[in-house]
Amino acid sequence: MSKVGVIMGSKSDLPIMQDAIDILKGFDIEVEVDIVSAHRTPEKLFDYGKNAHTRGFSVIIAGAGGAAHLPGMIASLSPLPVIGVPVKSSNSIDGWDSILSILQMPGGVPVATVALNGAKNAGILGAQIIGSSDKCVLDKVIAYKEGLKIKVIESAKDL
Amino acid sequence: MSKVGVIMGSKSDLPIMQDAIDILKGFDIEVEVDIVSAHRTPEKLFDYGKNAHTRGFSVIIAGAGGAAHLPGMIASLSPLPVIGVPVKSSNSIDGWDSILSILQMPGGVPVATVALNGAKNAGILGAQIIGSSDKCVLDKVIAYKEGLKIKVIESAKDL
Amino acid sequence: MSKVGVIMGSKSDLPIMQDAIDILKGFDIEVEVDIVSAHRTPEKLFDYGKNAHTRGFSVIIAGAGGAAHLPGMIASLSPLPVIGVPVKSSNSIDGWDSILSILQMPGGVPVATVALNGAKNAGILGAQIIGSSDKCVLDKVIAYKEGLKIKVIESAKDL
Amino acid sequence: MSKVGVIMGSKSDLPIMQDAIDILKGFDIEVEVDIVSAHRTPEKLFDYGKNAHTRGFSVIIAGAGGAAHLPGMIASLSPLPVIGVPVKSSNSIDGWDSILSILQMPGGVPVATVALNGAKNAGILGAQIIGSSDKCVLDKVIAYKEGLKIKVIESAKDL
Amino acid sequence: MSKVGVIMGSKSDLPIMQDAIDILKGFDIEVEVDIVSAHRTPEKLFDYGKNAHTRGFSVIIAGAGGAAHLPGMIASLSPLPVIGVPVKSSNSIDGWDSILSILQMPGGVPVATVALNGAKNAGILGAQIIGSSDKCVLDKVIAYKEGLKIKVIESAKDL
Amino acid sequence: MSKVGVIMGSKSDLPIMQDAIDILKGFDIEVEVDIVSAHRTPEKLFDYGKNAHTRGFSVIIAGAGGAAHLPGMIASLSPLPVIGVPVKSSNSIDGWDSILSILQMPGGVPVATVALNGAKNAGILGAQIIGSSDKCVLDKVIAYKEGLKIKVIESAKDL
Amino acid sequence: MSKVGVIMGSKSDLPIMQDAIDILKGFDIEVEVDIVSAHRTPEKLFDYGKNAHTRGFSVIIAGAGGAAHLPGMIASLSPLPVIGVPVKSSNSIDGWDSILSILQMPGGVPVATVALNGAKNAGILGAQIIGSSDKCVLDKVIAYKEGLKIKVIESAKDL
Amino acid sequence: MSKVGVIMGSKSDLPIMQDAIDILKGFDIEVEVDIVSAHRTPEKLFDYGKNAHTRGFSVIIAGAGGAAHLPGMIASLSPLPVIGVPVKSSNSIDGWDSILSILQMPGGVPVATVALNGAKNAGILGAQIIGSSDKCVLDKVIAYKEGLKIKVIESAKDL
Repeated sequence: MSKVGVIMGSKSDLPIMQDAIDILKGFDIEVEVDIVSAHRTPEKLFDYGKNAHTRGFSVIIAGAGGAAHLPGMIASLSPLPVIGVPVKSSNSIDGWDSILSILQMPGGVPVATVALNGAKNAGILGAQIIGSSDKCVLDKVIAYKEGLKIKVIESAKDL
Repeated sequence: MSKVGVIMGSKSDLPIMQDAIDILKGFDIEVEVDIVSAHRTPEKLFDYGKNAHTRGFSVIIAGAGGAAHLPGMIASLSPLPVIGVPVKSSNSIDGWDSILSILQMPGGVPVATVALNGAKNAGILGAQIIGSSDKCVLDKVIAYKEGLKIKVIESAKDL
Repeated sequence: MSKVGVIMGSKSDLPIMQDAIDILKGFDIEVEVDIVSAHRTPEKLFDYGKNAHTRGFSVIIAGAGGAAHLPGMIASLSPLPVIGVPVKSSNSIDGWDSILSILQMPGGVPVATVALNGAKNAGILGAQIIGSSDKCVLDKVIAYKEGLKIKVIESAKDL
Repeated sequence: MSKVGVIMGSKSDLPIMQDAIDILKGFDIEVEVDIVSAHRTPEKLFDYGKNAHTRGFSVIIAGAGGAAHLPGMIASLSPLPVIGVPVKSSNSIDGWDSILSILQMPGGVPVATVALNGAKNAGILGAQIIGSSDKCVLDKVIAYKEGLKIKVIESAKDL
Repeated sequence: MSKVGVIMGSKSDLPIMQDAIDILKGFDIEVEVDIVSAHRTPEKLFDYGKNAHTRGFSVIIAGAGGAAHLPGMIASLSPLPVIGVPVKSSNSIDGWDSILSILQMPGGVPVATVALNGAKNAGILGAQIIGSSDKCVLDKVIAYKEGLKIKVIESAKDL
Repeated sequence: MSKVGVIMGSKSDLPIMQDAIDILKGFDIEVEVDIVSAHRTPEKLFDYGKNAHTRGFSVIIAGAGGAAHLPGMIASLSPLPVIGVPVKSSNSIDGWDSILSILQMPGGVPVATVALNGAKNAGILGAQIIGSSDKCVLDKVIAYKEGLKIKVIESAKDL
Repeated sequence: MSKVGVIMGSKSDLPIMQDAIDILKGFDIEVEVDIVSAHRTPEKLFDYGKNAHTRGFSVIIAGAGGAAHLPGMIASLSPLPVIGVPVKSSNSIDGWDSILSILQMPGGVPVATVALNGAKNAGILGAQIIGSSDKCVLDKVIAYKEGLKIKVIESAKDL
Repeated sequence: MSKVGVIMGSKSDLPIMQDAIDILKGFDIEVEVDIVSAHRTPEKLFDYGKNAHTRGFSVIIAGAGGAAHLPGMIASLSPLPVIGVPVKSSNSIDGWDSILSILQMPGGVPVATVALNGAKNAGILGAQIIGSSDKCVLDKVIAYKEGLKIKVIESAKDL
């Protein structure tokens, strides 16, 4: 069964990254959470990136702020799809540094970047990636999107 | 077998988007190319988005410039993973408009955004998504990354 | 009689968009308010955009934040003038994403963009558009501007 | 019959602003072109703005670059809808100054801003404003949009 | 004797602009304060700008926020040196709009722009301009700068 | 008689700064040109700044690019009004660094900043500062502005 | 023995700059703290910069905000390595002015710039510079980095 | 004797990075040049970073563009001072991505960042770091700065 790795550069990123964990669990997808700092635990970064695809992960979601190198370095080390979440951390300049250092990867090494603080969308994208080959998860994504629609239509009735 | 849809808002985006097509073909992944303009062919956009997951696509790669709504609108309509390529078209402000209108999707509707003009990486990410459930494609991704490494190491010898 | 449609991507945009509603009502212009999400209710978006000009609307005012596709997609679907209000929503990067994804529409599909959170001005612009062919509304716009002037001149007396 | 005033801050803006003139003429809308500099001909600016609505204009399109005050000052002086075209002139910082000094008008005095160098869209928006009360022009806008769609669909066939 | 006109687009700018008034009074320079809105009181703007140099003013200090046209329009109308204060008002995008619409004046019509919310420096610059031909004011500027130095040196002693 | 000092950080800034020199000479104002680098000739910077007001200068115009410290350091050293010209030099990031490091001076030490590459306006502002106490120069400024107006009105006739 | 000079433009920068002082003291490196304002105490700036290398300093750390000229001017005057800390002071535009006026030094006069408000990293960098020729300090840097790693690994255990 | 490692992410960065090499050689400092790609040769990155301080290097200069992770990852792995050169490569957004992903390092792991494309200054800074403990190199830096001064003073004579 598919498993998603959710990692972040610092425990202070957890309140943001929790959204990804919650969404994935809502889709009944197995999640493994860890803290991996590109700048403070480079050996752990290497082990994590080198071995993720043989440890049963299908997708890795990595969140980081400021000069955010974690998503890109995991993408450097792993053949799996890596989703990057730019975190607007306290040391970030309105999030621009986080976004640009995750998004602007060189040719050959993509990171699937989502919106600033967009961990929820990272979780959904993780489910969609699994769903692209797993009919059961795809159906859950379809149902989820149907639910979004209903909520908006309900909210319009209150006007 | 997996198939990737590569679409763009205008034929003028093709020189950029060709990189995605070439990479995917290099991984022996079937590609179907089309022009779908969110702003000029909204009905085609709807048909494409609504039906992509029943037409055999696993992933959709959408490129657009300026106020680039194509990737996000396809993501609105389809449960498949959508990769967005911000194109620095002639009507773009240094690419910032393309990037922000693709990246900053609201909660619930992610677009996997790659770097400005990063169609090559969109193709690789498409392969990685397929590879996450297809051992054969995963191995090709591993080999591709090995090839990148060798080229850099060779280039260092010339110094 | 002329009618203005005021729509927004989410109910959370209502506190901002209320300014447009209030201004239009102050000009005795009929207003119809709805929530239409480009990303969560694409079918409603299509119906709304396709039929607005046959349902008696003269102008549509659309507000949205982040990757704000609502104004541009309505402009794609409708021949009516569409006024876009970039909303500085919680998921926006200081409003730049909202502004650029509304303003930078490609050639052929304009959106009349007003200032960030400028729903009041969207309402006035709506009245001006109606006033351009309706002497009675034009006179109200003239009176409104006269009122602005008097207030400034009064405020200067307090110095 | 409706008439659109197209003005610009300097003759050097004409190559950009010509797109608005051409589009409007294509819709058989009468156009009057003039050069009005907010900073070098303030008296002409005042006369133009004060009298436009009594001289038969329905809409004014104003283009300017750098610290672009022309559209906003015309909007200050006239009750008519004013469309602003930010021009990326040689003295502009990548167009940001032109955009922000046209878009960010204070509450009470809107300018309908289009994309950077978006004079073509200013012309279409002018036609849409007239079309909002003139069935004949509305039909031409509908036909124009139909033409855009056909061109995209044709271009897709060449792929 | 020299007199400085301090004007602002709205009474809400007064808390910022008060710094200019206080500094000038501290230099015993006569100040006349007024509210002149480029967008809401264009006739007052014209009268003010056209007549300032015959009413005894040596310098005009104009503060405004958002699409800040007041300083540039006064500079258009008056041959006097005009100092512009970009105000970070509530309708401003982090002050960038205020700065760019004051700073980026076209060739021929300068505005002496100071820092965002830099009304204090506008006052000092006003004094320096008067001081450039008035030995008495120049000496006060020299003494003021000496005072700044002493304060810094004192503050270093506390470390 | 009044004299203006025009200085720049590098001889490569001369093609831009020449506009200031030409304008001032056109107003029959004496100009003294020099190269003073804040970063490479700090002693010359000190001598220049400390003594300018006793050497007969009324105004100093200083142009520099990148981390442009010359105008601010002269303003630190001299009680005279200092006009800063942000130069878009080859080592500048689209001019933003030049603008911000000249404009954003701390309270107490103003620099009268003009537009990017706006040396022409620096020259005019220099003349306006002198003109604020010299009727003869003021009349030349008035005539200059009249000339600008006539050129625009002529150019409109060609349309 | 090596000594580091920590200076700042204003006492209000001390809460930020204290991080550099604390880190250096933690490495048992001698620190001398002073307030040196480029704009208000230019003579002190000169003395400090001219003499630092003969007064026993190995490195100078300079923090400043807004148009931050202190680090660059010290680098102009001293042959020592100068570390610049961009401070997000109250008069700064989100820190961009501080960053660009410290970072973008012209060829010939480098400033070793650290992150916005990154005084802690300035202190570590100061230690690393000393450590590059002092085995004892280098060992402390190695131990410090080991400590960072352990803290991250501990924090991951709490998940 | 001291040795500086100059590395870059791609051979295409060499024309920029050559300036660092040339300057260091001009100071008679030993230089070792290599290509190390954080994203394509992560193992080489690890080896390089882990061992640099035991291989005789005193300083490492690392240049990269776009999402530039090389300087920060070397800083993560090595206790030596790391100088980062943001390169405005073809895949960079006007250099902002390169700057922010090098500059904005988290607390604990500094990179000494120089200006965009500022490899020359990186070389000088490398010499200054060595010079901070090596009187002979310090004297060369002093002489170099003297040379800069003379060139500026000579250039002023030609005016």
